Amino acid sequence: MNYKLILKSIGNVLRIEALFMLIPFVVSFIYGDGDYPAFLWSILISAVVGTVLARLNPKSKNFRTRDAFVVAGFSWLFISLFGALPFVFSGCFDSLADCAFEAISGFTTTGSSILTNVEDLPRGILFWRSFSHWIGGMGVLMFMMAVMPSVNASSVNLLRAESTGPAPDKIVPKIKETARIMYLIYLAMTVILVILLKLVGLPLYDSLLNAFSTAGTGGFSTLNASIGGYNNVAAEIIIAVFMFLFGINFSLYFILIGRKFLRFFKDLELRVFVGIVVSAILIIAIDISGLYGGIFEALRYSSFQVSSIISTTGFATADFNLWPTLSQCILVLLMLTGCCAGSTGGGIKLVRFILLVKAAKVELGKIFHPGSVKSVSINGKRVTQDIVLKTSLFFFIYFAIFFVSVMLISVDGNDIATCATAVIASLSNIGPGLGAVGPTGNYASFSAFSKVVLSFCMIAGRLEFFPVLVLFMPSAWKRGFIK
Amino acid sequence: MNYKLILKSIGNVLRIEALFMLIPFVVSFIYGDGDYPAFLWSILISAVVGTVLARLNPKSKNFRTRDAFVVAGFSWLFISLFGALPFVFSGCFDSLADCAFEAISGFTTTGSSILTNVEDLPRGILFWRSFSHWIGGMGVLMFMMAVMPSVNASSVNLLRAESTGPAPDKIVPKIKETARIMYLIYLAMTVILVILLKLVGLPLYDSLLNAFSTAGTGGFSTLNASIGGYNNVAAEIIIAVFMFLFGINFSLYFILIGRKFLRFFKDLELRVFVGIVVSAILIIAIDISGLYGGIFEALRYSSFQVSSIISTTGFATADFNLWPTLSQCILVLLMLTGCCAGSTGGGIKLVRFILLVKAAKVELGKIFHPGSVKSVSINGKRVTQDIVLKTSLFFFIYFAIFFVSVMLISVDGNDIATCATAVIASLSNIGPGLGAVGPTGNYASFSAFSKVVLSFCMIAGRLEFFPVLVLFMPSAWKRGFIK
Repeated sequence: MNYKLILKSIGNVLRIEALFMLIPFVVSFIYGDGDYPAFLWSILISAVVGTVLARLNPKSKNFRTRDAFVVAGFSWLFISLFGALPFVFSGCFDSLADCAFEAISGFTTTGSSILTNVEDLPRGILFWRSFSHWIGGMGVLMFMMAVMPSVNASSVNLLRAESTGPAPDKIVPKIKETARIMYLIYLAMTVILVILLKLVGLPLYDSLLNAFSTAGTGGFSTLNASIGGYNNVAAEIIIAVFMFLFGINFSLYFILIGRKFLRFFKDLELRVFVGIVVSAILIIAIDISGLYGGIFEALRYSSFQVSSIISTTGFATADFNLWPTLSQCILVLLMLTGCCAGSTGGGIKLVRFILLVKAAKVELGKIFHPGSVKSVSINGKRVTQDIVLKTSLFFFIYFAIFFVSVMLISVDGNDIATCATAVIASLSNIGPGLGAVGPTGNYASFSAFSKVVLSFCMIAGRLEFFPVLVLFMPSAWKRGFIK
Repeated sequence: MNYKLILKSIGNVLRIEALFMLIPFVVSFIYGDGDYPAFLWSILISAVVGTVLARLNPKSKNFRTRDAFVVAGFSWLFISLFGALPFVFSGCFDSLADCAFEAISGFTTTGSSILTNVEDLPRGILFWRSFSHWIGGMGVLMFMMAVMPSVNASSVNLLRAESTGPAPDKIVPKIKETARIMYLIYLAMTVILVILLKLVGLPLYDSLLNAFSTAGTGGFSTLNASIGGYNNVAAEIIIAVFMFLFGINFSLYFILIGRKFLRFFKDLELRVFVGIVVSAILIIAIDISGLYGGIFEALRYSSFQVSSIISTTGFATADFNLWPTLSQCILVLLMLTGCCAGSTGGGIKLVRFILLVKAAKVELGKIFHPGSVKSVSINGKRVTQDIVLKTSLFFFIYFAIFFVSVMLISVDGNDIATCATAVIASLSNIGPGLGAVGPTGNYASFSAFSKVVLSFCMIAGRLEFFPVLVLFMPSAWKRGFIK
């Protein structure tokens, strides 16, 4: 392994994080809730450690696949742990495990909280929680590629390690350009969302924070009752629409900007996404209409919740713990599928399901035509057998980690639905699940050990397993690999 | 499709079933509970329909893969539906859906019951229920191959369609010989079990029926309280050991008979099976020891239940609905894994998990050695990429059918744990799940629609999906395919 390059990259990530922390630092100063020293210390520590590491001078600056995956795995761990420093210094949390959990939940855009009363937090800390969603949403390595001067072609491996979907790749020939375009689209959509929320009556502070959480499909809110607490139908509609929009593959927006409308609307994953969202909203609305006195009120809650869950945001305007089993089953399924690859959302991603359904059909077809070498294609492009295999193994790994994690946290004694959905909500970076971790609950009652397990799930899920699993391979630690 | 060959094969299966029904017919005569006319009519109908179909004269008697899969799919549907006739004529069941559910549950060796009081059944009917487990355990097409005079080499496709595991095949060059050896081992083990149960004090009738259910890893018992009702520790131990033994790949017994002990004990799947069973027994025993006043009593219940669940039998000596969440999670995981390929048990099969874990490791290794073409091997044999892909798609199909089925039956309004485990218990051919379908519950409260869904899951799970799914392919119904 090229350890120097790996450490240098982590150093750069920490320097960027120190810069990002300046914003909540200013916010804490403005509101004067007394939390600015927490940021001061955190910025200092991150900047110093980051600068020391960034000064390393590796012989090769070439990111091989293995270096890129290790960088991704460690970067996300470190940005979360250093990102937890403001929580530690603020004194608002009960334990170090809680601080780490909350920060990991933030950067991975999960939005699970161990806090029982967020409204009491100093406003700088509350800002940093939501802002971490925004940083994590598009990816911190992506940001590094967009802003660092020395980005070479091999950095595409960093993009592949951090981005989501079966085969992430550049949208324009240059990697730096790709990263910049992605971040510009992301920023522009966030700004529009802030303005809209402000227009329908949310305070600027709340508009900003909820926009960060929506853009990163995170789910931390400013109120204990989440978005439901505002009781503002217009804000609910705007956020529901934007959660959906942030669940779409960002390279499709690039296609849209290029006025290739046909290619945009013909995208198979987008069509499936729309189809699932519409069907889920309708079925749930019918299923819950008895609870809310009429289909229109039911549609209001079902559309918000479906958009929130499938985009893996996790905001709530209703307690779906009280909904009928069918609606709960649909929501759990949406937690697993998640939204589109290349979005800021989590989950297994719809394109993987499309790919596997097609592959299963091809496999069945082989019974009729044993010699056939028919292959899977999506949007007219042939998908290699390698990617099909990798995708189906991804599916297996998701469930393998799911089962092991459920068993590990079940020792705490929560019921089986709570344990199972807590793990799904962590792996898919959603936040709320069912039972004790439902929309009105939180993760405070879990043991420190369970919090570590769930934190692992959040990072593993965000990075889609491989960059985290390589860290457990002996090859990643063999000295013989140093080059 | 070679429709004539397909119909002829189904006819032969029905003729064999009519022969099998003679046994409960005799039993019903001996006990004089008045149920013998039910068998008389059923035998007549099955024999007549079977003979008419079996008289068809197809041009080719060559089973291509597609013919074999369609034969397997239909044979299991027909043997179940005709096997439900005695239930229909007996008048002991509330509806036709109930009769079909019980028969499908019998032949697929699931053991889910819609009956609330089995002890009231006439003894011929009760016998037929358990005997259907024995017929289904080793497979009805396998029996046909063992006894029918005209079995050609292409029949190996029937064996592949009906047997379990990623790549079932002959153990000796001749297919007829293979089928005979399998059935002889099966019969011998069943006879030993009957004798042992009789020796420890069970009545002959009960010994026979419980031996049938154990051998087929079915789970229908003669008492409402399942095996727990006998309160006979020796019988519990014997059945626990035999459930485990019937969960082992039968071709390993052939290896054992050939005195190749090293190859037997070095079999990877067997080792994993033993390892999982021992670990599960110990962890659960510790977890539940507080409930049963001591580790020894806890070991008694945990060992029986682990053996019963992993072998997918479904007998119970304790109500594991009341066990702590960790124990329940372990049992649910064992429901999914099931036991060894080529056994009479159900589930995904351990060898598939071994294969996928190895494939995932190879995939991770590719990050370090991008050009590598390392492949997966089990017991020193290389596994082709095709089989790896098929196995991972199998895993995907299992969960796809699982989720759709859970949603369909959730309309009944049962809680999510009940719905989820009812589907797993059906797909893996176990019987009891958690919640309302726990060891003390049953499937009576489900709607007729849900019973159909679960029946589909039982057959699809028993045949490992492909032979059932091909029936839904348009190619299976195209006239152009007739040859």
